[in-house]
Amino acid sequence: MRPFYRLHYAPDNASLVIRLFLEDRQLSYETALVDRTRTGHKAPDYLRLNPNGLIPVLETPEGAIFETAAILLWLHDRHGFAPEPADAARGDYLKWLFFASNTLHADLRVTFYPASYIGEDPGAQALLVSQMQNRLARHLATLDAVAGARPAWFDAASPSGLCWYIACLMRWMALYPRTFDRSWFQLEDTRNLSALLGGLEGRPATRAAAAAEGLGPRPFTAPQLASPPEGSAT
Amino acid sequence: MRPFYRLHYAPDNASLVIRLFLEDRQLSYETALVDRTRTGHKAPDYLRLNPNGLIPVLETPEGAIFETAAILLWLHDRHGFAPEPADAARGDYLKWLFFASNTLHADLRVTFYPASYIGEDPGAQALLVSQMQNRLARHLATLDAVAGARPAWFDAASPSGLCWYIACLMRWMALYPRTFDRSWFQLEDTRNLSALLGGLEGRPATRAAAAAEGLGPRPFTAPQLASPPEGSAT
Repeated sequence: MRPFYRLHYAPDNASLVIRLFLEDRQLSYETALVDRTRTGHKAPDYLRLNPNGLIPVLETPEGAIFETAAILLWLHDRHGFAPEPADAARGDYLKWLFFASNTLHADLRVTFYPASYIGEDPGAQALLVSQMQNRLARHLATLDAVAGARPAWFDAASPSGLCWYIACLMRWMALYPRTFDRSWFQLEDTRNLSALLGGLEGRPATRAAAAAEGLGPRPFTAPQLASPPEGSAT
Repeated sequence: MRPFYRLHYAPDNASLVIRLFLEDRQLSYETALVDRTRTGHKAPDYLRLNPNGLIPVLETPEGAIFETAAILLWLHDRHGFAPEPADAARGDYLKWLFFASNTLHADLRVTFYPASYIGEDPGAQALLVSQMQNRLARHLATLDAVAGARPAWFDAASPSGLCWYIACLMRWMALYPRTFDRSWFQLEDTRNLSALLGGLEGRPATRAAAAAEGLGPRPFTAPQLASPPEGSAT
């Protein structure tokens, strides 16, 4: 049977969130490698799928979807995963999903690509990255406190898309950017989130994704740089 | 009858997007002013509603929701407004809603509060704001091209939450930040979006919101600083 979905991915890129969710929910998909070493995400064919030139894209029978959190939510709803639109927990899920996307992920992206935000001056970049890391620490503390109240979406035994999203963001906080100090990030500072990451790490989806993208045995709690069988993370 | 929803708002803040949508869809609500001059959004009572201390919050019978786009989407789904989760247009709606939230709005926020991102140095702030304005111009050009293909969510005669969101973001691009040059923003550069703004301006919801928050007669196509009957925009 032809896979229903085609995930355009690069190893250890935001596409990892989608791969983990597809694997965990046992949805049928195939992958298409985006060759970052040749800036494949800026090639005309790719820009037709996503004019912003960002990874991932999920091709579906109803067209191409991009934006990590949009894909997660679309898959949630299309396959009837909780919280469904009528559920009382829906509002809580949506507000933290958007927070992860527009605050946690958006701020983290600044630390990965400071030149896109402040230009080439090393001093300005260092200042920006350091301020953003302060912000990220505050965001994680907020999210950890929220997680302590055990909201419906926060469950390593039946992880929502948002659980996988948070786990990947925290993996990247530990690993990137290579050129700046990352000592601000200590997994033990956020005990509830840390427990989630440990739980997700034991799931078959994590092993499958780690094998496909070369993420090592403990991609969330003891992350190592990706050593992928194909493609390049950067 | 007691209003179903309570919108915590400050004039011409992100809460405006929600007010416009509630008005336009004729949903019953009341407002609660957040007194920004006394940093009411950082007061303990407000932080219990939104630990991030940001405006808006929408109180609903199922709890408080925050994040502008999350509230929009929750209202869409709870009231059965198109595109519904099963619609073919759903993926397209979600990807641009998340884009508006995590890219357009997130980048714009940096230009409003550069000190939160780069600290107090005026030169660093100017550099950051200028780079972000370049990014915003690119994002708007992308969105304008998308709008040219007339997606289902883009319709001034039956505006989605995203239409109102884009209109408000563009209003704020024209007006803020006061302390930096804003000549990069020219409404006529994005003709499809400009037509949307003109269309929305003719709707009763715009007149109602403009009266409530002191936005003047043409809040989208010829915006003026808010002169609200109560509260403060900043």
